[in-house]
Amino acid sequence: MEQSFVAWAKVRAARLPQVKLGIGDDAAVLAGNTQDWVITTDCLMDGVHFRLQETNPRRIGRKLVNVNLSDLAAMAAQPVAVFLTLCLPDNGAGDMAADALAAEIYEAVCEVCQRRAISLAGGDTNCWSGPLVLNMTAVGKVENNNLWTRSGAKPGDYIVVTGPLGGSLLGKHLDFEPRLDVVDRLQGFDLVNAAMDISDGLSTDLLRLCDASRCGAVLELGDIPISPAAQQMGLSSGRSPLDHALGDGEDFELLLAVPSERLLELRQRLEGVCQPVVCGQFTSRTGLWAQDGGKFVQLTSTGYVHGASRI
Amino acid sequence: MEQSFVAWAKVRAARLPQVKLGIGDDAAVLAGNTQDWVITTDCLMDGVHFRLQETNPRRIGRKLVNVNLSDLAAMAAQPVAVFLTLCLPDNGAGDMAADALAAEIYEAVCEVCQRRAISLAGGDTNCWSGPLVLNMTAVGKVENNNLWTRSGAKPGDYIVVTGPLGGSLLGKHLDFEPRLDVVDRLQGFDLVNAAMDISDGLSTDLLRLCDASRCGAVLELGDIPISPAAQQMGLSSGRSPLDHALGDGEDFELLLAVPSERLLELRQRLEGVCQPVVCGQFTSRTGLWAQDGGKFVQLTSTGYVHGASRI
Repeated sequence: MEQSFVAWAKVRAARLPQVKLGIGDDAAVLAGNTQDWVITTDCLMDGVHFRLQETNPRRIGRKLVNVNLSDLAAMAAQPVAVFLTLCLPDNGAGDMAADALAAEIYEAVCEVCQRRAISLAGGDTNCWSGPLVLNMTAVGKVENNNLWTRSGAKPGDYIVVTGPLGGSLLGKHLDFEPRLDVVDRLQGFDLVNAAMDISDGLSTDLLRLCDASRCGAVLELGDIPISPAAQQMGLSSGRSPLDHALGDGEDFELLLAVPSERLLELRQRLEGVCQPVVCGQFTSRTGLWAQDGGKFVQLTSTGYVHGASRI
Repeated sequence: MEQSFVAWAKVRAARLPQVKLGIGDDAAVLAGNTQDWVITTDCLMDGVHFRLQETNPRRIGRKLVNVNLSDLAAMAAQPVAVFLTLCLPDNGAGDMAADALAAEIYEAVCEVCQRRAISLAGGDTNCWSGPLVLNMTAVGKVENNNLWTRSGAKPGDYIVVTGPLGGSLLGKHLDFEPRLDVVDRLQGFDLVNAAMDISDGLSTDLLRLCDASRCGAVLELGDIPISPAAQQMGLSSGRSPLDHALGDGEDFELLLAVPSERLLELRQRLEGVCQPVVCGQFTSRTGLWAQDGGKFVQLTSTGYVHGASRI
């Protein structure tokens, strides 16, 4: 459902001069004098994004902050402040009362914020008879010229991912670290033409980046980094580990378009932080393509989209 | 519940140099070079803030934007952009499917945004088996020196409200206009020492403003402007119209601290926009006091707080 709304809202929502980027990227950009403000909002709901009965509330709180910070990382923005909305079930969770549940979530949010020098600057907390809902808005900043967007990939750029993919449901989707460490190392060196975070699966998100950049992409299937979790899931899921790496959501690695002549410098700057993996190239021919040995086939987007099957 | 969390979170949340004002005012303030960015977030939940079965979704969408814009008005900020999160019930509302429900809410939000030249710049839309939840984050801007806060009231300042109070449950709580018109007229003239919007009732909110300003206030009970709706509710509620004006929430008028020598200019600048009403004075003696004819009594806060009775 969300994708059709994004398209509709993009047309319907007014674009105004102070808004440099509106709906359609990982975050919106408001133009300041020397720096841009990057703003994103993400919601987590019991039964959709996590199961409260089975999950420690601190992990949920941490995930909430980190999915938002991952969107800021995708724009090369440094996080400044977050705003937290909680809709708390009257009866709390299990034998934990509502106020104790709230305190656990707040503690997790504050812990991440303190570690990263981010301010928890506001919010809204309410109780109700419904399930737990958490919403966060995160605000970051970036020098005017250092912003990364989805729309700058050029034919010939390498497709680079910052880590192994797939199988995040086994745990990483709750415990990942947003790739702000990659941003810290790369920001300001003009090494990245386009970026986004991989939240709905490599194939889905790569196609979105291609659409925004008005280009296509050819993946080298043999080069896609497959996580141990994807291997493990492949043993029982009936899908191959590669399918998991291509289609699973919530990896929260970064997907980068890197000019071929800058790849070496990118690798050097990321030493000790992550091993960037080249898994294909952007092309002028639109669409998502795959090369597997000699074969050349068109890929459909098979990423996992939250709630998509519900309407 | 929220008030105790606000107090707790204020202590627990890190205050950082780039955050000029954090938790505790109507909105947070991030410092820019020549202008400040003012950010607020507010949530509306089915069964707590509205009843979906009984309410046109467009009125709910409009209320969502307007409660957020009211917080910006309280800080003298001009709205720039809003971010909309929707948690939509799978089954929609009545005979309205989920996507039609979403479209109605979006339309209402877009209508207000277009009329006021605000950008709907992002959001998050999901379906679930729970009730409707809406969250909005609104971003505004204000020149560095023109910001209003809760903490600037001085003993001797007049207590000024921008319109009649009480009884908003009869309709105004859904259909009010945020007092951005007042901000437009007053901004930059140094006529206001402190401000907030009246969302939880005059007595509750006045006491909050006093606490933030480390002063007290004496209300002239006979001067408090009582709305026709408060008069009407008083006929059957068992409470006096004055009680409604003092205690009812969601008036969304502004509460201002105005230096006595600036009152005349304030009145002139607001001509044609609203009739500002003086209903007492701030004092150095802390607490909330009332003068009614000759009597002088201490008032307790009797404002309406959403969800307060639930924990």
